[in-house]
Amino acid sequence: MVAAAASHRQGHWASIEADIRTHLLQSLPTTPLPVVVKPMHHMINSAVPKPIAPVLCLTACELVGGQRTEAMDAACALHLMHALVRSRARFHPVLGLRAENKSSSPFSDGVLLMTGDGLVSFGFELVARSESSEPSRVLKVILEIAEAIGAAGTAEGLNMVADGATAVEKVCEKTDARLSACGAVCGAILGGAGDEAVERLRRFGLYVGMMHGLLCTEGSSEAAEEFRSLARSELKGFEEGKLDEVRGLVDWWYEQGAVAAVEAARE
Amino acid sequence: MVAAAASHRQGHWASIEADIRTHLLQSLPTTPLPVVVKPMHHMINSAVPKPIAPVLCLTACELVGGQRTEAMDAACALHLMHALVRSRARFHPVLGLRAENKSSSPFSDGVLLMTGDGLVSFGFELVARSESSEPSRVLKVILEIAEAIGAAGTAEGLNMVADGATAVEKVCEKTDARLSACGAVCGAILGGAGDEAVERLRRFGLYVGMMHGLLCTEGSSEAAEEFRSLARSELKGFEEGKLDEVRGLVDWWYEQGAVAAVEAARE
Repeated sequence: MVAAAASHRQGHWASIEADIRTHLLQSLPTTPLPVVVKPMHHMINSAVPKPIAPVLCLTACELVGGQRTEAMDAACALHLMHALVRSRARFHPVLGLRAENKSSSPFSDGVLLMTGDGLVSFGFELVARSESSEPSRVLKVILEIAEAIGAAGTAEGLNMVADGATAVEKVCEKTDARLSACGAVCGAILGGAGDEAVERLRRFGLYVGMMHGLLCTEGSSEAAEEFRSLARSELKGFEEGKLDEVRGLVDWWYEQGAVAAVEAARE
Repeated sequence: MVAAAASHRQGHWASIEADIRTHLLQSLPTTPLPVVVKPMHHMINSAVPKPIAPVLCLTACELVGGQRTEAMDAACALHLMHALVRSRARFHPVLGLRAENKSSSPFSDGVLLMTGDGLVSFGFELVARSESSEPSRVLKVILEIAEAIGAAGTAEGLNMVADGATAVEKVCEKTDARLSACGAVCGAILGGAGDEAVERLRRFGLYVGMMHGLLCTEGSSEAAEEFRSLARSELKGFEEGKLDEVRGLVDWWYEQGAVAAVEAARE
């Protein structure tokens, strides 16, 4: 019974991720230059660990009564921003130590660097081009994404690492959890939520991101369990009929994060 | 008489550049981390050669009947995008050869790389936050800027160089001239221009950017003179009373570009 529920969740969220990937690949610019397209596909597909911000974006949109399609462009943009943050590890003096496939990439550092810039601008392009929501909501979402990856967001988090920071919790808060909070907020805005619901979902996203980030880095811990509990408490007041799926998602990510940590420790 | 006119132009455009710089520095996020603020100021101030896209943005806005303030955030964003493109030369295997102060920067490569990412997101943040124009116009401007620095814009231009391209004209078209065209278009949109005027000013900005880029790289040439002539021809039909300043600007940039080339050749 438990296994069946877990399998159902896994299938449900795999289908969301597949939707995002399909929309993203369909939306990519068709430029004639393979020097741009090939590394772009490579970077989009090699984001490890998998981003949870895009799924949070679609989930939050549905939770506040919106349609998944309304938040799809923003979800894709968040997938790109996650790929950017991960890819920067490659060039980063400190993060570079943790980067995967550093030597096995078929592309030069210069090409990957410029492609990262291309990913960011394409993310904003996707959202700005979106006609699935009102212009004023779309502008708010662009602002949220810009702040999340900016000088007080992931760029600050990565700079902190470059500057010698080693506190996992602080770095996680500024990078993965920052993007997760942004994902939930963008979905809520596009789904038409009011200010209070937006801020609740911002905290929800942040806590889920902290939980997942800490689990992936350190394995199960009291702190991760605490963040799961905090996240769940932010869900009170939303439509009960939709909450089962959301709670199931949080639990599933909890399990997945713990599994990822065990696997990483084995290597 | 000619000298007096040149001096007047120089003062006029210096004042525009000062306005942009003041607005930009006032708008910078006040983050508590010097690790972000210091390299950001460094990159914004070290953009060489000076960007013409921001000035084109304000000029186009006024030319179509708008107020300079309506286009100020977009002009600042374009200054940031120019700084980004220039700063990437530092990390770029090919462009790096032409980068200035490669070894004299007080910041590590990692910090400058992340700061560049921060510049881009801050540019979009500035425009998205702008309340000086209608949301639908602001969205169009964000889309234009994203496309200009994206996989079919400056990112493609820089990738072409990384891939071995050496044709100055082609690279210039995809980088500096692409941003100049974008500048003129953004100003026109924010100033309320119709589609036809926007497209004329797009070509005007492209030609001016080609003229200036070729002059700075190769000195006076038939091609640069041809682009000046093409640029001027796109101005027909705009309000005659405002065209003197614009034509003067083009001529002044022509002279400045030629001077810069002579100075570069002397070094």
